[in-house]
Formats: sequence, C-alpha cells, structure tokens
Amino acid sequence: MADLRKEPITRTWVVVTTDHPKGPSDYLPFKPPYQPQEAEALCPFCSGHEEMTPRETFMLSGEGGGWAVRVIPNKFPFFHIEGEFDRRPEGMYDVMEAIGAHEIVVETPGHKQNFASMDTQQIEKILRAYRERLKDLEKDRRFQQFLILKNYPGIYNRHPHSHIVAMPVIPRRIDEEIYGTLDYYQRKERCIFCDIIKEEILMKKRVILETVHFLVFSPFASRYPFETWIIPKKHAPDFHHIHEEGIEDLSVAIQSLFLRFHKLLSDPPYSLAFHTSPVQSRFHRSEYHWHIETRLRIGLREGFEWGTGFFVNPTPPEDAAAFLREMG
Amino acid sequence: MADLRKEPITRTWVVVTTDHPKGPSDYLPFKPPYQPQEAEALCPFCSGHEEMTPRETFMLSGEGGGWAVRVIPNKFPFFHIEGEFDRRPEGMYDVMEAIGAHEIVVETPGHKQNFASMDTQQIEKILRAYRERLKDLEKDRRFQQFLILKNYPGIYNRHPHSHIVAMPVIPRRIDEEIYGTLDYYQRKERCIFCDIIKEEILMKKRVILETVHFLVFSPFASRYPFETWIIPKKHAPDFHHIHEEGIEDLSVAIQSLFLRFHKLLSDPPYSLAFHTSPVQSRFHRSEYHWHIETRLRIGLREGFEWGTGFFVNPTPPEDAAAFLREMG
Repeated sequence: MADLRKEPITRTWVVVTTDHPKGPSDYLPFKPPYQPQEAEALCPFCSGHEEMTPRETFMLSGEGGGWAVRVIPNKFPFFHIEGEFDRRPEGMYDVMEAIGAHEIVVETPGHKQNFASMDTQQIEKILRAYRERLKDLEKDRRFQQFLILKNYPGIYNRHPHSHIVAMPVIPRRIDEEIYGTLDYYQRKERCIFCDIIKEEILMKKRVILETVHFLVFSPFASRYPFETWIIPKKHAPDFHHIHEEGIEDLSVAIQSLFLRFHKLLSDPPYSLAFHTSPVQSRFHRSEYHWHIETRLRIGLREGFEWGTGFFVNPTPPEDAAAFLREMG
Repeated sequence: MADLRKEPITRTWVVVTTDHPKGPSDYLPFKPPYQPQEAEALCPFCSGHEEMTPRETFMLSGEGGGWAVRVIPNKFPFFHIEGEFDRRPEGMYDVMEAIGAHEIVVETPGHKQNFASMDTQQIEKILRAYRERLKDLEKDRRFQQFLILKNYPGIYNRHPHSHIVAMPVIPRRIDEEIYGTLDYYQRKERCIFCDIIKEEILMKKRVILETVHFLVFSPFASRYPFETWIIPKKHAPDFHHIHEEGIEDLSVAIQSLFLRFHKLLSDPPYSLAFHTSPVQSRFHRSEYHWHIETRLRIGLREGFEWGTGFFVNPTPPEDAAAFLREMG
C-alpha cells in the first residue's frame, strides 16, 4: 500500500510508498532515465504474452482475430483499488490511503510503434479505450480525478503504452488550472481557454495546425521548448464525453503533431497528459476546458525549475510553432 | 535579452529567451543531462584562468595569496541587469523584461571538490560569499526575490559552483510557501515551520541530525527519495542576516549531511536551494522561515509529476532519515 501525505505548508499531496519501500541499494548504480531494456522476447505487453499480465479490463479487437488495444491493471500501481478510504492525522500532519486505480493501456500488439508511425485508425482505437475506461471508472464514487499520461519511450518498457490513473484527490496542477479558470470566469463570465483559442487563431503566430474540432498551438508562456497543447475549439469540460467524430478528428491532430515532432527533432522523447475536469457532481467543473499538454524531454534545466518553480525556456513558442508548421 | 511571460491560467512566470533562441539543431543529438565535459585545461573556473571570466563581484582570499571563493557575473544569465523595467500587454497576455542578476559562486580554486570533500572552513567561506552578495544585491530595489541554487555535478561544468539569482518577481514555489505560512499564522498566530521543527524533534523518526542552531530532517511529505531540509531552529525570515556563529554551525551541518549522502549513495547527484523571504519592505515577510531544501537526482518519475503536480516517492522519509542517521 501507499500513503497519500499532505505537505503542510503548500498543501500538495504526495504518494509515499510504504509497503515495498526502496532503500539506497535500489538506486545504485545510478542509471540514466529513459533507457528501457530491449528484451522483446520477455515483453509482457507483446502479442502472445498475455498470460504475463493481469486479466484485461477492456479490449478492442484487431484484424484477423487478435487484439488491437488492451487495457490491464498496473502490476506496480501508484494508487491501489482496495483499502479503507479514511483521512487521519499523524501528529500535526494529514495522511490517507492512496486509494485509486492505475491501469495500463497497451496501445498496439507490436513492440516498436509510436504516434508518428501508427495509422489514424489505431490512434482512434487508443482514444476509444481511454474514453470507455474513464466512463467505467467514473462509477466508482471514491475517484475525484482522472489522468491519462504517456511517456515515450516508456521508462521501464519500450512497448507503446499509456497510463490511466484515477485519484481520490485533485492534483495540484489541475487544481491551479481550475482556480485560474474560475477566477477568470467570475471577472469576465467567459472561459479563459476559449479566449486563448480565439486569441491564438487571430494572432496566428503560435498556431501549428487547426482541424475541424481542434487547435494545436504553442502556448504563450511555454514552460518547455516545443511545448504544445491540443485543445477542442468548442467548450467541453471532460475528455470522456467526446463523440465519435471528435475522436476521428483528434486522431488526425495527434498523428500530424507527432509526425512533425518526429521529422523536426528525429524521434524525440516526450510526455503527454490529458487535463480534464474532476468527476462526481460535487467536484465537477463545467467552466473547465479539457485539453492535452505535450512536453518534449529535451534541454531540461531541472535544478532551477525545482528550486523556484520558475521555468526557463530557450525556444520562444513563436519559433517553435513556425518550425512545426513547416513540417506539415 | 529575455521575456518574463505570465502563464494566464495558473499565473506562473516563465523566462523565455528571445535574443539567442535555440532551434531544433541545438537539441540534436539528444544528450543525457548531467554529463559535463572534463576539460580541466579549458575550465574558466579553475585557478589561473580568471581572465576567461568577467571581473568578480566578490572574492575571499585563500592561504598563500590566491583566492578561496570567487563570485562572477554569469556569462549566460537567465536574468539581465540592464533594461527597462516595464510590464506590458501582448494581446490578452502579460509580459515584462527579465531584469535581474545572475552570478556564479566559484566555490573553490580546485576543479574536483564537493561538500563531502571540503573542510568546514571552506564551506563557511562559500556561505559568507552568499551572504555578502545578497546584502549588496538587496540595495537594488528592482529585485524582489533571491535564490541560491547548486547543482552537483554542474550541468555544463563540473568545477564546484553555485548560482545566485536576483529576480524581479516572486517565483511560484516561494509564493506558495508564503501563502501557506500566512494562512497558518492567521489561524494559529504561530510559524508553521517552527511548529514542524518542534514536532520533528519530538517525534525523532525523521530527524537526521541536530546542531546547536540547525535541524536536518526528512520532511513528512517528502516529494523525492532522501529529500532533506536544513532549517534554523530559531525563527528567522532571511538567510542573509545570519550571524558568524550561525555560519560556522551551518557549515558543520552541511558537511555532515553531504558526507552521509556520499557514504550512503556513493556520491549521488543532487540539487540544493535556499528558500528565503522576499526582500524590499513591501514584499518582505517576517512570518517566513528560511531554510535549505536538498533533492537527490535519483529515481526520477518525471512524467507523472509533470502531468499532475503529483509526486510519487518510493522511499518513506522515516526510512531515509534512519539510513542517514546511521551514516553519522
């Protein structure tokens, strides 16, 4: 199991593993991150190795009888589905069990694929798997927030996969966005994300591409080089209420963006996260506007960011957008 | 020059380089971070190479006529000392010049040293250099916040050095701590940091060591494995008003902590930041309590933290403190 501990000064929640804690020897020797082993024969996510993983929570069939996308519980979850849902004091501090769900979406049967090499039909299937799992997990009223997250390449396994996490608290970053969204709404009675979309379409210089339903752009205060957001042009708080036409259009936007990254920066490592409204009627925020944030893992200036919460970005978003537009 | 751009939703400031922006080719091929070149003959920080750097802003003499610690302006600053100090709109967004100071503290004349190998007299000199530079920089009324930051090993140069940054805005992380400190003070009329110190001394299990004036401990909601804070036991908002006895005592605490890290985790990479109250009478907060935060750069789970602001720590602080106590 794991604790959810509240940092008393800034009130950030931290997941602290308590049942199989890592000691010094687990960190030695130091390994650079993002160098997963290429042991395809032993990969639990490859087609034919299904018995190496827990039973799937969701599956979509592929051509010729096999599966196309498979969702399984994570064997090493940050959040656990069983346990007592209680908050308790520990001295002056607050702690609760890290109750939640943590599932893995195996995005293709093949070991070596990515958004730049997949066809849009495959990306649609992945998006449908996200949507259906979130709809199902929403029934568990303990969960306040969903996160869909992808690291490419995967940190422990290069087989293309993403994470679906259901959490019993609203994480800091989403909470800050909601706070800012509500504050803006109170002052202007408009959605700040909708205003940003209008402004960016008008100014053009940070737009990478526009599809029927989505805008892909470099945000004005990009924290990272080539930071990119994909956002529905029409106001919508939740990703998982997306309709079929939206899924088809989004898969085109995703494929196009990652093809551009691939061409411009020769297959760069990246992370991608879906930001979507909290769920359950008492936490849901209709003022929120769901979107996808992507970050390339290049040119990190980690110490400074960690020390201050201050980001230093050596590539202006206007330049980034211009480079990526040209790759279309 | 550089822009300071305000992210409109969460209102975080981001430094965006605009005069020498990095394009795609600057990021290729991908280099793993923290592998600085070992070209000692060309190191601008080594004794005898002083002409390779700008003229120092501060210096402390060593034995035998040379210098012991040297402070120089950074040739590649995040914040620039010259420029107009104005805020201006850009469409719906806010932007200002990144006015500030960015100096490098060269911590020893020798290329291969660290806090674990230095004697306490040398660490005292480094702390005195920090203090004297902050006292001088405080006279420039454009600066609201100081940061002292050290990455070990340095990202571009392995020669032991740290950064002093003076900023025209208060960065996110300090702002959040101040907000939490003031909120707690309003409710209890006590400093939350002072209460944490009392609690930790009472509970013992997260204490690593205690000196006359400082407590070294693993915080309850440690975000990172072996996260450690060094905090003055007596309330004090600003590092740079530390007296000589405090400096001598702090250098003992620092040396002891980094010797323990060195023994336990065989010379791990780390970052260290001083958190101190904003300066200038209208921003200064006497309720704030200065401290040093250290983070080992091991076992990173970057994607998840980036995606959510949620930290996952696989080493409970009680375990970390016990391991480090034993290394004493």
